[in-house]
Amino acid sequence: MAHFDSAVNTAQHVGELFGVFAFATSGALLAVRRGFDVFGIVVLACSTALGGGVIRDLVIGRTPPASFVDLSYLWTALLAAAVIFFWHPSPRVTGGPLGVADAFGLGLFCVTGTVIAYNHGLGAPSATLLGLVTAIGGGVIRDLLGGQTPSVLIPEQIYAVPALVGATATATLLHFNAYNPITGACAALGAIVFRLLAMRYDWHAPQARRRPQDRA
Amino acid sequence: MAHFDSAVNTAQHVGELFGVFAFATSGALLAVRRGFDVFGIVVLACSTALGGGVIRDLVIGRTPPASFVDLSYLWTALLAAAVIFFWHPSPRVTGGPLGVADAFGLGLFCVTGTVIAYNHGLGAPSATLLGLVTAIGGGVIRDLLGGQTPSVLIPEQIYAVPALVGATATATLLHFNAYNPITGACAALGAIVFRLLAMRYDWHAPQARRRPQDRA
Amino acid sequence: MAHFDSAVNTAQHVGELFGVFAFATSGALLAVRRGFDVFGIVVLACSTALGGGVIRDLVIGRTPPASFVDLSYLWTALLAAAVIFFWHPSPRVTGGPLGVADAFGLGLFCVTGTVIAYNHGLGAPSATLLGLVTAIGGGVIRDLLGGQTPSVLIPEQIYAVPALVGATATATLLHFNAYNPITGACAALGAIVFRLLAMRYDWHAPQARRRPQDRA
Repeated sequence: MAHFDSAVNTAQHVGELFGVFAFATSGALLAVRRGFDVFGIVVLACSTALGGGVIRDLVIGRTPPASFVDLSYLWTALLAAAVIFFWHPSPRVTGGPLGVADAFGLGLFCVTGTVIAYNHGLGAPSATLLGLVTAIGGGVIRDLLGGQTPSVLIPEQIYAVPALVGATATATLLHFNAYNPITGACAALGAIVFRLLAMRYDWHAPQARRRPQDRA
Repeated sequence: MAHFDSAVNTAQHVGELFGVFAFATSGALLAVRRGFDVFGIVVLACSTALGGGVIRDLVIGRTPPASFVDLSYLWTALLAAAVIFFWHPSPRVTGGPLGVADAFGLGLFCVTGTVIAYNHGLGAPSATLLGLVTAIGGGVIRDLLGGQTPSVLIPEQIYAVPALVGATATATLLHFNAYNPITGACAALGAIVFRLLAMRYDWHAPQARRRPQDRA
Repeated sequence: MAHFDSAVNTAQHVGELFGVFAFATSGALLAVRRGFDVFGIVVLACSTALGGGVIRDLVIGRTPPASFVDLSYLWTALLAAAVIFFWHPSPRVTGGPLGVADAFGLGLFCVTGTVIAYNHGLGAPSATLLGLVTAIGGGVIRDLLGGQTPSVLIPEQIYAVPALVGATATATLLHFNAYNPITGACAALGAIVFRLLAMRYDWHAPQARRRPQDRA
């Protein structure tokens, strides 16, 4: 099993770095669109990619947070910032691959976040919540720093629900002692496929009905 | 005393859940007004209701924060989000009761926040500060996520000062070893009545004089 | 050496209080410009002055954060808020001295932040990052609460790069065991002079080239 476990760990780490790269790229692209300077690009790239995990680690009391100890996440985010700064591809080119990579980050982060929180002694519902925070927290910070309403809150294509489903599945597996690399990968894959389908078929979450006088 | 203490604890817990419900409702109503989807409503409800306490717990090093351990706060916030999503009452209906419930939350949170911080070894001034953060932090997060200037900072009816008064009274009682369920309840009641009077008589805090050229 | 060390410590503490005062003043002035009430002025002054250090301390697990234990920082920030509330000088009067004091705060905070993080066991790159966060974090919180895009991200005069240079120099000194009061003071002075020169000669950081269709 040792070989298998190690291969799974490597696969998971590589997957997470893909997710970090995708998240960092989305932050860097927003910074470019807003006319931020090179420093602003780096800050938005790093806080998008690492913010969710840092919040999770602060909440569970794991200090310093993982991304301050294992620097591969930070270097990956900086690499993404550099690529965007120098190359700065058109959104039409990046749109497709970026969305897919972002979906991988979302799916992997919601699972690993839930596992880390659960292994730090949180109950299944709290671990689910933190898995969700890990997956979407960085994007919320990106949008706050970039001066726009967090895109995860507004009725664009479903984004948070796949992460919530993945986190819930993971916490359920952990609770019933059925979590292992294969079931965990299935949970991540489920979230990823759900997100890709939402992008492909333009799925939206319901809004509350609003009377005209309720609009802000 | 055991009976009495237990009754006091129950009363305090019920009061806090009322406050959580009121705070969560204010977050959910803002989300509806801004056109957020069901997920945005849930996020705003939860972060408004639980945000202040989470910040307090992170600052005093109580990890995981209380609302990740005792889930009654989370369920109460989710209930408020569900009520607003399905029923979505007009602000004219909710305005009055909501303001009163919010005042109860404010008064209870500033007292319990101060007590928790003091019992974790902080000095009276720092405990006062954290009591204030507990009471108003959630609303600040709500407004940041909702894309508006934190209402507690702008010259609407006095909101933070009652919380500050309640927290200061509590810290003073603790410092002079005079805090007990009765004096603590008086501090909370004082803050609640102060806030209700500010709403009733439209009290405002002073602003600095501004010359015309100072306006942003 | 004891005398010398103690004199250095006193000089550093006085310098930090100068920086706190300058940062708090910048927060209070923004609050006045935005028409916030007296409470909003106090909140913006305190969170600008203390926010960066609080984030650093939460990340390294030093709870409660230093500014909740040593209250001299808090009182200094409150003093700055009071001065601005009552006196409220014109920006033309405060601009020059304020910019210089702010540069001192920036230079001192990036060095002390890096040292504190390094002494808590973080590696040199992570310590550099936290030194930077200590120096600029308060200003980011100020701008978020004040409803504007963080000024450190946009292409105004170079602000974060001096802090990054100071933090990098400090971490390098610590890594090679060459940090002492004198070399540390040189790192701080370098950052301060760099920032003052950037103000004097209107230096800017580069932006990524943007095609017209990339603008937000």
